[in-house]
Amino acid sequence: MVINPNTTASMTDDVIAGARAAAAPGTELIGSTAVRGVESVETNVDEVWGALAVLEQVRRGEALGVDGYVIACFGDTGLPAAREIAGGPVVGMTEAALFTAAMVAARFAIITLPPRTREQSERVLRLTGLGHRTTVRTIDAPVTEVAADSLHLLDAVAEQGQEAIRADAAEAIVLGCAGLAALTVPLSDRLEVPVVEGVAAAVTMVEGLLAQGLSTSRVSTYAAPRELGI
Amino acid sequence: MVINPNTTASMTDDVIAGARAAAAPGTELIGSTAVRGVESVETNVDEVWGALAVLEQVRRGEALGVDGYVIACFGDTGLPAAREIAGGPVVGMTEAALFTAAMVAARFAIITLPPRTREQSERVLRLTGLGHRTTVRTIDAPVTEVAADSLHLLDAVAEQGQEAIRADAAEAIVLGCAGLAALTVPLSDRLEVPVVEGVAAAVTMVEGLLAQGLSTSRVSTYAAPRELGI
Amino acid sequence: MVINPNTTASMTDDVIAGARAAAAPGTELIGSTAVRGVESVETNVDEVWGALAVLEQVRRGEALGVDGYVIACFGDTGLPAAREIAGGPVVGMTEAALFTAAMVAARFAIITLPPRTREQSERVLRLTGLGHRTTVRTIDAPVTEVAADSLHLLDAVAEQGQEAIRADAAEAIVLGCAGLAALTVPLSDRLEVPVVEGVAAAVTMVEGLLAQGLSTSRVSTYAAPRELGI
Amino acid sequence: MVINPNTTASMTDDVIAGARAAAAPGTELIGSTAVRGVESVETNVDEVWGALAVLEQVRRGEALGVDGYVIACFGDTGLPAAREIAGGPVVGMTEAALFTAAMVAARFAIITLPPRTREQSERVLRLTGLGHRTTVRTIDAPVTEVAADSLHLLDAVAEQGQEAIRADAAEAIVLGCAGLAALTVPLSDRLEVPVVEGVAAAVTMVEGLLAQGLSTSRVSTYAAPRELGI
Amino acid sequence: MVINPNTTASMTDDVIAGARAAAAPGTELIGSTAVRGVESVETNVDEVWGALAVLEQVRRGEALGVDGYVIACFGDTGLPAAREIAGGPVVGMTEAALFTAAMVAARFAIITLPPRTREQSERVLRLTGLGHRTTVRTIDAPVTEVAADSLHLLDAVAEQGQEAIRADAAEAIVLGCAGLAALTVPLSDRLEVPVVEGVAAAVTMVEGLLAQGLSTSRVSTYAAPRELGI
Amino acid sequence: MVINPNTTASMTDDVIAGARAAAAPGTELIGSTAVRGVESVETNVDEVWGALAVLEQVRRGEALGVDGYVIACFGDTGLPAAREIAGGPVVGMTEAALFTAAMVAARFAIITLPPRTREQSERVLRLTGLGHRTTVRTIDAPVTEVAADSLHLLDAVAEQGQEAIRADAAEAIVLGCAGLAALTVPLSDRLEVPVVEGVAAAVTMVEGLLAQGLSTSRVSTYAAPRELGI
Repeated sequence: MVINPNTTASMTDDVIAGARAAAAPGTELIGSTAVRGVESVETNVDEVWGALAVLEQVRRGEALGVDGYVIACFGDTGLPAAREIAGGPVVGMTEAALFTAAMVAARFAIITLPPRTREQSERVLRLTGLGHRTTVRTIDAPVTEVAADSLHLLDAVAEQGQEAIRADAAEAIVLGCAGLAALTVPLSDRLEVPVVEGVAAAVTMVEGLLAQGLSTSRVSTYAAPRELGI
Repeated sequence: MVINPNTTASMTDDVIAGARAAAAPGTELIGSTAVRGVESVETNVDEVWGALAVLEQVRRGEALGVDGYVIACFGDTGLPAAREIAGGPVVGMTEAALFTAAMVAARFAIITLPPRTREQSERVLRLTGLGHRTTVRTIDAPVTEVAADSLHLLDAVAEQGQEAIRADAAEAIVLGCAGLAALTVPLSDRLEVPVVEGVAAAVTMVEGLLAQGLSTSRVSTYAAPRELGI
Repeated sequence: MVINPNTTASMTDDVIAGARAAAAPGTELIGSTAVRGVESVETNVDEVWGALAVLEQVRRGEALGVDGYVIACFGDTGLPAAREIAGGPVVGMTEAALFTAAMVAARFAIITLPPRTREQSERVLRLTGLGHRTTVRTIDAPVTEVAADSLHLLDAVAEQGQEAIRADAAEAIVLGCAGLAALTVPLSDRLEVPVVEGVAAAVTMVEGLLAQGLSTSRVSTYAAPRELGI
Repeated sequence: MVINPNTTASMTDDVIAGARAAAAPGTELIGSTAVRGVESVETNVDEVWGALAVLEQVRRGEALGVDGYVIACFGDTGLPAAREIAGGPVVGMTEAALFTAAMVAARFAIITLPPRTREQSERVLRLTGLGHRTTVRTIDAPVTEVAADSLHLLDAVAEQGQEAIRADAAEAIVLGCAGLAALTVPLSDRLEVPVVEGVAAAVTMVEGLLAQGLSTSRVSTYAAPRELGI
Repeated sequence: MVINPNTTASMTDDVIAGARAAAAPGTELIGSTAVRGVESVETNVDEVWGALAVLEQVRRGEALGVDGYVIACFGDTGLPAAREIAGGPVVGMTEAALFTAAMVAARFAIITLPPRTREQSERVLRLTGLGHRTTVRTIDAPVTEVAADSLHLLDAVAEQGQEAIRADAAEAIVLGCAGLAALTVPLSDRLEVPVVEGVAAAVTMVEGLLAQGLSTSRVSTYAAPRELGI
Repeated sequence: MVINPNTTASMTDDVIAGARAAAAPGTELIGSTAVRGVESVETNVDEVWGALAVLEQVRRGEALGVDGYVIACFGDTGLPAAREIAGGPVVGMTEAALFTAAMVAARFAIITLPPRTREQSERVLRLTGLGHRTTVRTIDAPVTEVAADSLHLLDAVAEQGQEAIRADAAEAIVLGCAGLAALTVPLSDRLEVPVVEGVAAAVTMVEGLLAQGLSTSRVSTYAAPRELGI
C-alpha cells in the first residue's frame, strides 16, 4: 500500500503510476489517499494531520491484509508511528530515496519544494546520517502546484540540478516531493545523471524486505503500542 | 501556558507545581491538559495524538491571549507545528533541559523512561547537536506509573545517575520525563550534581525570550500555515 | 552476479543458497568465485587481492551480459572500482545490510569477525553515515573457520547479539561476514529481532535499482576509466 | 554581573544598556570592565588577557556577593575558568545567543567581526554542537570601531544578513560581537527575522538558572580550583 | 622509500626532488616507481592497481632493509595494506599533508585534480576527521598532464587558492596531487599562505616516527597478515 | 624551545630528557619553565595562568631567536596565542600526539589525569576531529604527583591501557600528561602497543615543519596581533 498522507487523490494516482513501473510483476500496489486531513503536506501543522492520516490508512491496510507500506510524502511523515501498528515493513520515500542515491552516486542533491520544507529533508538526513554526501536545494513553488502536474517545473528543477552538479559536485538528483514523480525521466534525460524518485525506490525496498522475510523490530522503539481506543 | 500533550490532569498539576517555583513573580502559568488523546506519550503512535493535542491547546491558548508556551513532554512532541500557529515563543522541555544542562556541566546524562522512548531523546540530541556531551540512560517503568507520583522511582533513577557520573563522566542529570519533576530536589541532594527538570527550564526560557522581545522566526520553516479549516 | 572476492568456492555456494531465497522469481543469480587471490578477506592485504579479484569478475560478468552485481564481502572490497567498469548497478553487502537494518530498527549492531576486521565495518559506517545508530561487536574466530559452516558459531554470535540488545540498545543485528549467512534464521529465532544478511539484502537492492532503471552515475567519481590494457 | 573582558568602559555601558531592557524587574545588573588588559578582544593573545581579566572580575564579584555572571565577549573568553571560581552560574554570551537562536529558528547565521575572529565562533559551535544549523559570516571591521557606536555598520551587517537568509537559508541572526548590541532592533526591523544579542540572552539565562536553583556542577570539570595565591 | 604507485618514473623523480629538500641530512631517500600497473592513479580502478603496486614495492623495500615508507599518491592508495607488511612506519602523503596543514592554519583547502578524484580526498578527510576545517576544490586537468611538469597549472591552482582564501576562509593550501610538487614555492609566493606538499610532509613524519622509535601497532587492524604465497 | 606552562622545573627537565631522545642530531632543545604562574595545569583557572606563562616564554624565545616551539602541556594551553606572536611554528603536545597515534593505529586511547582534565582532551579532539578514533580514560591522581616521578603510576596506567585495548579496541596509547613521559618505554613494553609521548612527538613535528620551510599562516586566525604594550 502506497500511503498518500494528504487528501489529494490526483497525487496518489500520479505517484502510483510512477511506482508501478518499478514494482515487481507479482506486486499489487494499492494507492491510498487520506480521507480527512490536508490537501498537501508543506507545513509542520500539515505534518501533524498527515501523520494522523497515515495512521488511519495503515489501520485500514491492516484490515485489508496489506503486506507492506510506503509513505509517499517527502519527510516521511508518520513513519515511526506507522511502524508500530503495521504488521509488515514500512518504508518512507525519503529514506528510500537517500539510500538508493547512495548506491549509485558518491554525492547527490535533494531538490525539494517549497523552501519552507527544507527542514523535513534535514530531519531525514540527520536520521540517516547521509548529510555529508548531500546538499538540499529548493524550488519556490507550493506543493499544491504539482498536484495535477509537475512538468511545468522541469526547467526550474533542471536549473537547480545543473547548479548542484556544478557547485555541489552532485552526481545524482533526489526528487524532494512525491508530486515531482513525472519529472524522473525527463530530468534524467536533461541532466544525464540518475534521478531518484522516492516512492518507486520505497516500493522496491518494501519488496526487498518482504523477500528477505524482514519486518520492523519489535524490541523497543517500534514495539506495538498498547490499545488506545481512539 | 504549559501544555501537557496527554490527558492525565494529575501530571499537569505536578508539572505546574514544580515549574511555578522557577517562574518569575510576574509570570502567570496556565496548566493545560489534552482534552482528548492518550493518557501518556510513550510510543510513536502516542506522539501523533500528542502532537494533535498540542495543536488544539495552542489554538485555545491563542484565543486566551497566551504570551508563550512550554511543551511538557520529553521529546518535544508537536513543537514544530506549535511554533507555526503560536504568536509567541514555544519552547520544548527537552531542548530547554539540554541547553540548561550545557550551561552548568561539561557532560551530562538524560535519564528517561520507559526504554522504548530512547529514540525521542536521540531525536532532540540530533536536532540540538548536544549528543557529543550527553548519554541516555533508561529506567524500565511506564510513564503511567509516574502519573500520580514518582518518588518511588528515586532509587532506580539515583542508581542510573550514579552510574552516569561514574561510567559516562556525567556532571549533571536531565530528568527525561515530565512525570519525574518531583525527583528534582531529592535526586540533586542524593547525587550532589545539578538535576535539570525540563519544564521548569522551559518556563524560564520562554520568560527570557519574551523579555528579549523574541519570538519564532516567520521566514521559512515556521512561517504561519495557511488556513486549514479542520 | 554475486561476486565472492576470495577463492573459496564453498563460501560462494553458501552465500548463493541464502541469497536465492530472497531473490525475485525472475532473477537469475550467478555465483562467482575468485580464480586467483586469497582464501578469505580478513586483512588489508587481502583486500587488495580481493579488489583485484572483484575487477576480474566484473569483467567476466560484463562479457556475460550480467545486469547487476553484488559484492559478497563485508567491507565492500573493490566496490568503487567495480562501479566504474560495470554497466549495471553494483551494491556492496555491507551498505545494503546497513540500509536494510536502518529501515527495520532505530539502532542496530554489526557482529563481525575476526576482531582485526573492525576497521572495515567502520569504513563503511563513515561512508554511509550510519555510525550514530550502530555499534560494532566482534567474534574471535577467523573467516576461514566459517568457510564450510558457521552454525558452530551460533552461541558466540548470539551472546554478542544479546549483549548488543541489552547494552547498546540494538534492535536488529547485521551479520558482519558473508560466511555467517547460515546463521540468519537460527539467530533471528534465538534473539527475536531482525537479523540482516547483507548478500540477500544486496540482491534485493540490485533488483530494485534495475526495476527503477537506475545505474551508477557516470558524472564524476564513477565515470568509466580509460582503457588500461592490463 | 556583566563582565566585559576588555578595558573599554564605553562598550560595557552600551552592552548594559541593551541588556537592561531584557532583564527582569528584580534583577540588578552590574556592569564590570577590565581594570587592566586589552582594549578589545580580537586576537588569540587578546583572549589570554581577556580570560585573566574575567578571573579578576569574578573574584571582585564574589567579594560583592554577586549571584551570577555573564561574559560579554563573543567567543566566551574565560568562561570555563570563571565557572570554577564563581559560586553562582556563569553564562557566555555566545552559548546563550546560540541556544536562544535555536529556540526561534531552524537555522541561523552568526555575523561577527573582524574576519580573524571566525575561529572563536567555530570553537563555541563545536562545543555546543550547533554547527549543523549555523553559518558564520564576517564583517571586515575591527572591534574597536564599534566601541563607541555600531550604527554605522548597519548597512554592512544587514547586507550579510540578507545574504545569510538567501544563500544559507538562515531564519535568524546572531550578532557576533557585544559591540553590535545597538543594531539589534534596527537590524531586526530591516531583515524581519529575529536578531539575537548574546548579552541580553545571557542575562535571561542566568536569571533562569538562578530561578531554578541551578549553578555550575562541582563534580569534575568545574570543581573549585585549589588556592593559587596569585 | 618514497613509493609512487604508478609507473611514471618522471613523477617519482619530481616528487623525490621536492621531498629531498625537506629530508634530514642523515636520511637516504629511495624513490620507487611501480614496475607494472597504471600511468597515473585517477580512477577507482587505478587505485586497485596502485594498491597492488604499493604492496610489491613495500616487499622490495623490506628486502632492501628500508626503515620507513611514504606513499606518494593523493588518497593514500594502498596505505592500510602497506602497514601490515612493512616493518617500519608507513605514512600517506594525504594524511601527512592534512595533519601538517592543521598545525599551521585553522582552516585550509585541498586543491586536487582531476575533479573525479574528489572522493579520494573526502575518504581521507573522513578517516582523519579534519573535514570540519577543510574544503576540497578541483582543477579540471588529468594527472598525466602533470607527469612531466606542473608549472603551467600555476594560474589555475592559484585562482582556486584565492577563491579558497576568500570564500572558504582557508588559511593554507594543500596540494592534492604528488604531481603538483613543483608548485609549492611559486604558489606560496603568489598566495602568501603556507602551501603544504604531502610527500615532503610525509617524509618528515616518517623521520619523526623513526626518531620516536614508533612503528605501526601490531595489535589488530594492522597485525601482520598470514603468508599468502601470491 | 619546549615550553612548560607551569612553574615546576623538574617537570621541564623530565620532559626535555624524554624529548631529547627523539630530537634530530642538529636540534638544540631549550627547556623553558614558567617564571610565574601555577605549579601544575589541572584546572581551567590554571589554564589561564598557563596561557599567560606560554606567552611570556614565547616572547623570551623570540628574543633568543628560537626557531620553533613546543607546548608541553596536555590540552595545548596557550597554543593559539603563541602562534600569533611566534615567528616560527608552534606545535602542541596534544595535537602532535593525536596525529602521531593516527599514523600508527586505527584507534587509540588517551590516558590522562586527573579526571577533571577530561575536557581538555575532548577540546583538542573536537579541534582535530579525531574523536571518532579515540577514547579518553583517566587516572585519579593529581598532576603534582607526577612532578618528580611517574613510575609509581605504571600499574594504574597499564591497567587503563589494557582495558582500552580490550574494551575500546584501542591499538595505541597516548600519554595524556607531560609528567608521564617516563612511562613511555615501560608501558610500551608492558602493553606491546605503541605508546605516544606528546612532547617528543611535537619536537619532531616542529623539526618537520622547519624542514619544509613552513610556519603559521598569517592570513587570518593567527595573524600577528597589534602591539599591546602589556
